[in-house]
Amino acid sequence: MNVVTEQPANAETPLQLQRGVITPNELFFMRNRFSFPQIDTSTWRLEIGGEVERTVSLTYRELLSMPSRSLTVTLECAGNGRTGMNPPAEGEPWQYGAASTAEWTGVPLAFVLEGVGLSEGVTEIVAEGHDGGHVSDARGEEPFARSLPVPKAFHPDTLLAYAMNGEPLPDEHGAPVRLIVPGWYGMASVKWLKRIHAIRGHFDGYFQVDRYVFVEPGDGGLHRPVTEIAVRSIITTPHDGATAHLGNHLVRGLAWSGAAPVESVEVSVDGGQTWQPALWTSEPSRYAWRAWEFRWDATTPGPVILASRARDAAGNTQPETITWNELGYGNNAIQRVAVQVGGEV
Amino acid sequence: MNVVTEQPANAETPLQLQRGVITPNELFFMRNRFSFPQIDTSTWRLEIGGEVERTVSLTYRELLSMPSRSLTVTLECAGNGRTGMNPPAEGEPWQYGAASTAEWTGVPLAFVLEGVGLSEGVTEIVAEGHDGGHVSDARGEEPFARSLPVPKAFHPDTLLAYAMNGEPLPDEHGAPVRLIVPGWYGMASVKWLKRIHAIRGHFDGYFQVDRYVFVEPGDGGLHRPVTEIAVRSIITTPHDGATAHLGNHLVRGLAWSGAAPVESVEVSVDGGQTWQPALWTSEPSRYAWRAWEFRWDATTPGPVILASRARDAAGNTQPETITWNELGYGNNAIQRVAVQVGGEV
Repeated sequence: MNVVTEQPANAETPLQLQRGVITPNELFFMRNRFSFPQIDTSTWRLEIGGEVERTVSLTYRELLSMPSRSLTVTLECAGNGRTGMNPPAEGEPWQYGAASTAEWTGVPLAFVLEGVGLSEGVTEIVAEGHDGGHVSDARGEEPFARSLPVPKAFHPDTLLAYAMNGEPLPDEHGAPVRLIVPGWYGMASVKWLKRIHAIRGHFDGYFQVDRYVFVEPGDGGLHRPVTEIAVRSIITTPHDGATAHLGNHLVRGLAWSGAAPVESVEVSVDGGQTWQPALWTSEPSRYAWRAWEFRWDATTPGPVILASRARDAAGNTQPETITWNELGYGNNAIQRVAVQVGGEV
Repeated sequence: MNVVTEQPANAETPLQLQRGVITPNELFFMRNRFSFPQIDTSTWRLEIGGEVERTVSLTYRELLSMPSRSLTVTLECAGNGRTGMNPPAEGEPWQYGAASTAEWTGVPLAFVLEGVGLSEGVTEIVAEGHDGGHVSDARGEEPFARSLPVPKAFHPDTLLAYAMNGEPLPDEHGAPVRLIVPGWYGMASVKWLKRIHAIRGHFDGYFQVDRYVFVEPGDGGLHRPVTEIAVRSIITTPHDGATAHLGNHLVRGLAWSGAAPVESVEVSVDGGQTWQPALWTSEPSRYAWRAWEFRWDATTPGPVILASRARDAAGNTQPETITWNELGYGNNAIQRVAVQVGGEV
């Protein structure tokens, strides 16, 4: 893993080790805001309360006996690619490895919410983790907590997940149970779940209103919330700064989008002047990235700028340049990879 | 793992540990006919020869630089379910755990074959592994080797696989490179590859003509070869011999077929007299099994026979009773699970 910060543990997946679609659990990127909790599964309970008809407290065993669903889902940190921001933005200096993919198995959150019955007028469902601590001088201590609008909370693919790639959830990825919110940036997929509560109005926790919002010049303090993953492609091979011999190469990468399945990827080997289609090398998926390849014939010695751009089925494309924002979220601008071509095969 | 034989190592995946679609590498069923070889990847070479225009010898590194593909594929041992045969059949006494699923990444065999150019009249492609030994008194020593008809060898999904669930192939699953033949029983997916050779006529190796054929009463010595995986569903929860309280339960299982994607699963809670549809709990896939669930309300104390039956998109269904054959292959008869209902919740 490429360590970003030691304490709390933040680490990226080394892109050159990403083969195919599934990221092995031990290579899955790690995002922690605090020291991560280690929870005894046998005594863990999930409280479902707030504005509901009857509060319940679920055990791990009870959750395992409920209807389940397995989905392959790419999670991406909202700050992935932040180091591409200029001027630099606040926050962990992620390059492009704060995204990974796993098969998640769990209980649709909707099933549990239907069991408790929401009161009239409920608008959001708040998920709170066991992780927390000092967040700011004004706020003091807060747990990590995030809300989902009711329709997203009731989407059948929003899961209370207990398994990752067929194994019980590892401690560092939210054991025993975490949320998985497919298509949204990772902050929504709250780890180490403690409590789910239904509210009327809008949740105003620190991680809802002070973080994970686009703070943009001229927004007059009305910050758009960070939600859906913006369409993106990355080049995994060759790496930035690599040297390449004259002749044939395969440029490899991944592409994904929160709004809709990715539809095409194009590659440029001349810094973005001309583009040619890449080929898919993995199966289509609703929520997981797809792998692609592009055959590149390096004919002239010297520096070359490689770039890739994806389009999703909703027509979204990647911008040429970064949409700068103060907290450095959602940078899906076209990535450029500089390679030095030289020498014979 | 449930060990079937210690030496050579044969072990089943414990079905109750199979969550979702992906089987973790360390729980993937193991099928060995001999002690498994441990090969140094840095000196390994794959010879491609026989009736070809030019013989080549590929290194691991060269293979990794070729066009690739990632596919999620269920592998099933042709002898899976053999213990259900009556009278007992020859061979390892597999119950229902000799099937598992992984994402495989590798180079289409077709790409390599196109590179060497087949000679006129080639009909089969033989894949030979590094594993081998005494096979019978008449034959003496032989490597494990199997042939594919040319159209199957050239199918774009037939892979020279080097990664399993995003990790380099483990030793016990054929490192550094194995064949993956999606939709066919596991014997076709030759492990620890050593040599690929093109032939005219029919390959007559021990594992092609003396094993992996249906030896059936009255076939007059004309044995059908074992190829495509027959449609099958299994119940993973509850297990045979379990006790269940009165009230609601979820019956869980998996379903797959080599001929076409599985289309439906039905469950019976009265020993096969009446059937009701199960619900899919994982995404559709061309080559991987799908997970399903069925809500069962146990209303009366006493013994209950649960059963499941799948249908694939080609219209194939599971037979009521076992199609007996001497070597015990391809038993896809409807599985029956006996459960004792009793007591209160």
